[in-house]
Amino acid sequence: MSNSVINFTRGMPPTEVFPIDDLVRASESALRNDPAVLLQYGRSPGYKPLRELLGSWYGVGPDQVLIGNGSLEIIDFIARTKLASRRRAFVEAPSYDRTITAFRRTGAEVVGIPLQSDGVELEALERELKAGPPGVFYIVSDFQNPMGTTTSLERRQQIANWAAEYGFWIIEDAPYRRLRYWGQEAPTLYSLAPDWTYHLCSFSKTLAPGLRLGYTVATPEAIAELADFAIDTYIGPVFPTQGIVYEYCRAGLLEPNIEKLKALYAPRLSATLAALERYLPAATWSHPEGGFYVGVTLPKECTMERLLPRAADAGLKLSDGRGFYPNPKDGDRFLRIPFCSVTPEEIHTGIARLAELIEG
Amino acid sequence: MSNSVINFTRGMPPTEVFPIDDLVRASESALRNDPAVLLQYGRSPGYKPLRELLGSWYGVGPDQVLIGNGSLEIIDFIARTKLASRRRAFVEAPSYDRTITAFRRTGAEVVGIPLQSDGVELEALERELKAGPPGVFYIVSDFQNPMGTTTSLERRQQIANWAAEYGFWIIEDAPYRRLRYWGQEAPTLYSLAPDWTYHLCSFSKTLAPGLRLGYTVATPEAIAELADFAIDTYIGPVFPTQGIVYEYCRAGLLEPNIEKLKALYAPRLSATLAALERYLPAATWSHPEGGFYVGVTLPKECTMERLLPRAADAGLKLSDGRGFYPNPKDGDRFLRIPFCSVTPEEIHTGIARLAELIEG
Repeated sequence: MSNSVINFTRGMPPTEVFPIDDLVRASESALRNDPAVLLQYGRSPGYKPLRELLGSWYGVGPDQVLIGNGSLEIIDFIARTKLASRRRAFVEAPSYDRTITAFRRTGAEVVGIPLQSDGVELEALERELKAGPPGVFYIVSDFQNPMGTTTSLERRQQIANWAAEYGFWIIEDAPYRRLRYWGQEAPTLYSLAPDWTYHLCSFSKTLAPGLRLGYTVATPEAIAELADFAIDTYIGPVFPTQGIVYEYCRAGLLEPNIEKLKALYAPRLSATLAALERYLPAATWSHPEGGFYVGVTLPKECTMERLLPRAADAGLKLSDGRGFYPNPKDGDRFLRIPFCSVTPEEIHTGIARLAELIEG
Repeated sequence: MSNSVINFTRGMPPTEVFPIDDLVRASESALRNDPAVLLQYGRSPGYKPLRELLGSWYGVGPDQVLIGNGSLEIIDFIARTKLASRRRAFVEAPSYDRTITAFRRTGAEVVGIPLQSDGVELEALERELKAGPPGVFYIVSDFQNPMGTTTSLERRQQIANWAAEYGFWIIEDAPYRRLRYWGQEAPTLYSLAPDWTYHLCSFSKTLAPGLRLGYTVATPEAIAELADFAIDTYIGPVFPTQGIVYEYCRAGLLEPNIEKLKALYAPRLSATLAALERYLPAATWSHPEGGFYVGVTLPKECTMERLLPRAADAGLKLSDGRGFYPNPKDGDRFLRIPFCSVTPEEIHTGIARLAELIEG
């Protein structure tokens, strides 16, 4: 057993998975094939050949795709355009902490809808919709961040129906969707409510986060509105990296890379679930079929306030679960375990240390 | 004389100046030398080796440098942090249209201070300072966009003194500063008021705009505040392009590239001034010593409303001068001539056409 610190904080890929040689070749191809476009001021929706390619994955044209410098900033753009009139935003509780911050920066009220093992609680959602529909509802429908859960088809259909009925925009953030290790895929919210959904995806988890290459697929009108907002923010996004990703995908390298990542990450998810079973039977946790995270609810007596100050001494780096909830105290016993950048051995060591801390 | 359309609109470099081979090599060096940093989530102030290099140009450490995805977005960040409490922003009149938009998006009042041949009119500035100091004052001190003028040392000193006295932030946007074709350089506003200035610069005019690589130099506290805002907006900026620029500069390629650009652009500025003298003696214009633009004030009878509808038929693409003024009607006879991406022959053709239009 290693004595080094085990890091269960940020959801980043391990650096050793970056396909450096392929990216060097893709970079040379991009800069040689299309330098006049990639090095010049570019149009705000992004590099057109890549927009065409991404659109083809969803059966839409390039006018339905906007590529930005990471998908978080696209969320910021949507928040700043869609929360200007309707001052409520819904999120799953727990949710991605940076999205909560982006919504709050607009001055909007952020309402958390309790998340269950197969999506948000529909009764709570309906109650809040009746109290006042939001401008946007942010949902990580596959392998949720931070919980790891996936929204069931039934709940997706109900949310899609309500989006049209109450007239709110769904932000479907799907960066983990392609990283399914077992089980059956459900259709995207975008496919169920194409007129009311910004489908967001990125290459951060399937290729490399440093590229900051995120994109959204939506109606032509919604994309045009975001493109107008983007041009006033940064003229156009960074183009050479969009050229690199285009050449990388065009060379047929993305699918084998995703298969390679799944083969690496699936045993890490299995190890996490096995270690929880073995060391932490008093806790409860989600049972993800993919993605980056397992969400753990610690036993009753174990609060963040007690746990966090002692974690560092025990050789553990943990995220404060309260940061994932619009109402922080709801996360007082919540722990997100990101398993992709730790080996199965480190996972066992880390969860054993966690159990000792909790019992100690 | 060519019959093709002459484009006097956007201030972009001609595509043929992009050093493709050098950038391909810099890209390979970057991805091979530091892949674990450049491809991973990066820190929000930017790639540290490049921050160290840029800081060394200004005699400061990396904690005083933030690199973003283009300098316009850094202006957006400054606006959103500094105009939250003080709801006034000053700009030169005319000024860069996108900055005016960024300030207005925050809800702030944008006040134009009339620009003269050596900087803003100090009496008007003092009057407005007494009426209510702004959160920020945006100044393009060298080869102003859109006017082409440079703020004199005397005026820089007065503005620097007033910044400290009235407690407002100067945003000194200096993307053209290194492109001086003749005459003497004045010290930056940043060097005169280091505690009250965000000095902004970029590689868009000296290397390639598609990189969207802009940066700001300011106090450690001001940089830390922007870095916090940036992390909540996009986690970190695009890193591979920062690695490319770092390797490009480290190989000693930037200075010769700037010399090459100056040798190309200086005759274009001369041609613009000569053509104005020859074809448009009834107009007045600035006499820039560098940069991208000559600002022209058309003869009395020649308004934008009369000119623009007929320009296209005459084979001319022109920008509406009214867009550069906080109060649009002040720009009714203003024309910005961007001269860098047109040849001396095209400049003569274009200005001859403009003269015919005005006389016709």
